[in-house]
Amino acid sequence: MKKRYVIGIDFGTLSGRTVLLDAYTGKEIAVAEQGYAHGVMDKELPDGTPLPDRFALQHPSDYLDVLRNTIPAVLSRGKVDPAQVAGLGMDFTACTLLPIDEEGVPLCLKAEWESEPHAYVKLWKHHAAQSEADEITALAAARGEDWLPVFGGKISCEWELPKILEVLRKAPHVFEATDRFTEAADWLSRVLTGKETHAAMFAGYKSLWRAETGYPDDAYFAALDPRLSGLIGGKISAEVNTAEQIAGTLSVSGAALTGLCVGTPVALPIIDAHAAMPAVGATAPGDFVMILGTSACHLFHGARPAPVEGICGYVTDAVVPGCTTFEAGQACFGDGISWFVHNLVPERYENEAKSRGISIHALLRERAALLRPGESGLLALDWMNGNRSILNNTDLSGMLLGLTLATRPEEIYRALLEAAVFGSRVILEQFEKNGLAVKEICAAGGIAKKDPLIMQIYADVLNKPIHVADTAQAGAIGSAMYAAVAGGIYPDIAKAAQALCAPASTVYQPQAENHEAYEALYREYVTLYDYFGRGENSVMRYLRDVSQNAKN
Amino acid sequence: MKKRYVIGIDFGTLSGRTVLLDAYTGKEIAVAEQGYAHGVMDKELPDGTPLPDRFALQHPSDYLDVLRNTIPAVLSRGKVDPAQVAGLGMDFTACTLLPIDEEGVPLCLKAEWESEPHAYVKLWKHHAAQSEADEITALAAARGEDWLPVFGGKISCEWELPKILEVLRKAPHVFEATDRFTEAADWLSRVLTGKETHAAMFAGYKSLWRAETGYPDDAYFAALDPRLSGLIGGKISAEVNTAEQIAGTLSVSGAALTGLCVGTPVALPIIDAHAAMPAVGATAPGDFVMILGTSACHLFHGARPAPVEGICGYVTDAVVPGCTTFEAGQACFGDGISWFVHNLVPERYENEAKSRGISIHALLRERAALLRPGESGLLALDWMNGNRSILNNTDLSGMLLGLTLATRPEEIYRALLEAAVFGSRVILEQFEKNGLAVKEICAAGGIAKKDPLIMQIYADVLNKPIHVADTAQAGAIGSAMYAAVAGGIYPDIAKAAQALCAPASTVYQPQAENHEAYEALYREYVTLYDYFGRGENSVMRYLRDVSQNAKN
Repeated sequence: MKKRYVIGIDFGTLSGRTVLLDAYTGKEIAVAEQGYAHGVMDKELPDGTPLPDRFALQHPSDYLDVLRNTIPAVLSRGKVDPAQVAGLGMDFTACTLLPIDEEGVPLCLKAEWESEPHAYVKLWKHHAAQSEADEITALAAARGEDWLPVFGGKISCEWELPKILEVLRKAPHVFEATDRFTEAADWLSRVLTGKETHAAMFAGYKSLWRAETGYPDDAYFAALDPRLSGLIGGKISAEVNTAEQIAGTLSVSGAALTGLCVGTPVALPIIDAHAAMPAVGATAPGDFVMILGTSACHLFHGARPAPVEGICGYVTDAVVPGCTTFEAGQACFGDGISWFVHNLVPERYENEAKSRGISIHALLRERAALLRPGESGLLALDWMNGNRSILNNTDLSGMLLGLTLATRPEEIYRALLEAAVFGSRVILEQFEKNGLAVKEICAAGGIAKKDPLIMQIYADVLNKPIHVADTAQAGAIGSAMYAAVAGGIYPDIAKAAQALCAPASTVYQPQAENHEAYEALYREYVTLYDYFGRGENSVMRYLRDVSQNAKN
Repeated sequence: MKKRYVIGIDFGTLSGRTVLLDAYTGKEIAVAEQGYAHGVMDKELPDGTPLPDRFALQHPSDYLDVLRNTIPAVLSRGKVDPAQVAGLGMDFTACTLLPIDEEGVPLCLKAEWESEPHAYVKLWKHHAAQSEADEITALAAARGEDWLPVFGGKISCEWELPKILEVLRKAPHVFEATDRFTEAADWLSRVLTGKETHAAMFAGYKSLWRAETGYPDDAYFAALDPRLSGLIGGKISAEVNTAEQIAGTLSVSGAALTGLCVGTPVALPIIDAHAAMPAVGATAPGDFVMILGTSACHLFHGARPAPVEGICGYVTDAVVPGCTTFEAGQACFGDGISWFVHNLVPERYENEAKSRGISIHALLRERAALLRPGESGLLALDWMNGNRSILNNTDLSGMLLGLTLATRPEEIYRALLEAAVFGSRVILEQFEKNGLAVKEICAAGGIAKKDPLIMQIYADVLNKPIHVADTAQAGAIGSAMYAAVAGGIYPDIAKAAQALCAPASTVYQPQAENHEAYEALYREYVTLYDYFGRGENSVMRYLRDVSQNAKN
């Protein structure tokens, strides 16, 4: 059989990672990574223009550099002829939005706009449109819009419409000059193929679009601001491209940019975390995937569409045909553990770790692993960065309870791990309460591979085996799988995943005794979760306000 | 005028401190301290016998070493002739209880009992009799015993009866072999004078005795356990010695032990914290004294007897004639701060403190002092060693709320200080709610002298000036004042205090802006205090139980 290859590119927050796979065996032939020269701009623009608080911008030329450098790099390292590449796929952070002109040129690349913050790419974690998001939610609730529950009942400031409304209100001249607001991922597809597309996944999770009924009515947009009337079909493309389509094929300029052949199929882009699902073999209803890193992302294939309160949203047929894929998250995960280790572990622990030549994390994990569930007497709420799912409230904060004069750092460390796992269980149960059964759980991301303690706690708390994916490049590999479908190697993504994904090499099995102990602890966690999280005691919000005021 | 001197000895938790005073001027002539060789035994007995959880025992020979060594030391340092010593006074922790035989010999000093934990001195902070304390409270409530409200409505596991019931239930052979259960203080009086006494103050605060009506009826004890019938007048002395009496005079053996003269008057012992009241000049109704050390003791002279819910008890005329003295406390104070500093402050802080040549406490205090009230966004409950007043519940535990990824150690440090001060305010307000006005507040103890930050927080939170006593030896000096009364130098303790106490040299004044900020924070503290402390959410008790079970 003739050798064929596929390329997947994972556009993350700080860099792009490209992988070249054997299209039949899934073997990883070569990998290349390119950091973004401008990184995340949250203090100033390249010309020194200062940025307001909570801004997080990017520079689109950084994405082009990834295409220009990493694709030739993997081809050269793998000694692969461009003609052997069957397809190209990409995943991208979202909603990562930029304004472009009629020709598809980002406004910020034009000299006249280079000092205008609102002309740049607004990264997913740009949080300056919170008041716009609140306004959008309030208006939808007041009008009884039927799409509001589909998106978890609360519109996130990270999504498209708050970011557009922010441009309209704060920089109306930019709004005027914009032909389209587009996801960075869709813009790159256009750069490569010369064709405009708007991938259903991005539209469905970030732009209030639904497969069944499309976008909200124009009347809603007009009520929000008369200047938004005509937004859909105007500054937002009305056409949405569903998963069975491809973005197109490489144009002459797209081929020149990447070193690939003209006509190479380009898959529709996907959202970064979702690319991990086929990469770990999660392509059937009931599959639950947790990407555990700095924060945690939970992806779930449901058997049918259903609004689930507190879950950010869902899209049907966009990740895997036949599945409704839900997205949820924990805003604080690995960074909560890092915060503790950096700030609250004493010198004698550092010294012991150094003298034994192990990391401080390893030392704490070793000691924490000796504790039985409940032995520390501690219980925590894992909200040091607010709560994304299922409360969607950035004003919440962390709590630690059960402290005694005998409490040791490793006990707090373990309590923080347990709280993070309990937080995941709340999300999982929210699906089950809505009649969507979770069957198989797979974990990926740095923490899943590095921390056997938290993975065992997952198995014990959830009382289910936890499969841990081997790959360190789940995003890029998933993108390559979509490329293999776009290139006609496989009829659909499920078949591509079946052929290309490596089975999980590690499976954590629940231990009955531990599970029983955690059942009771989890009930106490939920009581505190509801008490502090659902308004009975709003002390966390109050303390945030007081702290903010005291600093000003 | 002929030179006369008095000696006061303060038996603390870890050492005895002895002071020799000029009986007319109050001048401190000499001081000596002796640590207890066995310290607090909470892991094992001297012979290696392991101790159960929550045990805290002492060895009576350590107290004798204090008498044997420190009295000759102060006489020698002060170049004072024993014949010039007008009296000897002692204060002691309470309830610090031991079983003795007919001859007054502690059972634990006999070879047959040396491996039996229940034969040793149970220190005030021995907390293993919580279930017995709960049983005692429940039975008293069920029977409608009229003395229950006098003792705050809840019997503490630190008191005499729970400790005795624990011996009866856990080591009935020790109970059988015991002639008397006695406070260590009363036992030392007997060692010195050859006479048995039972000081009213100990009986009134720790043994359910009241001046008006004596001990609870025998029927109550019999209902608790038939074997307790006859306890009063049996294993507990029925006679109680009130403040106008003295313990006696030095016997031949007492004189030989101490190097003092036979016949030297020995004052009735007093509870350690109470000795500080005359030492700081607090001898009038409305005076509120806080002894701030490892734990905090709050003493308040009320104008009249009155049951105050959650306050451990009160005794009339026992500290100062004409005053009803209430005792309350916080089981966790300085040791909560020390716990944090020892376990949860990172290496870089240690390094900075070392390189600047200051203590880690000083560094944290310096940084915490830069924060404005509420700026940290944190709120804590100061129950790392349970709550003594006004909840009287050792199952409660510490809580920390408002944590974010930006939270720094000095912020937690300040939140713990604020929680400790809020805890004191709850106590103070409990008196005022019961119609007992607090007029002047004086603080003593190691923390009052060493920590200007917490003292300013006191002034701001309480909105009253806080007077800080100069003496580092308030307990021993107060004991010496009682010795001066026993020796006939002064007619009563108020006169002795007037003559001998030094005025407070430091006064912290409240700052209006800070007080206002703390008002709102304190309200939030009280909401959490009530929620976790009064049974609405008993998660802390639950976690203690789970932890206990997991360890067994």
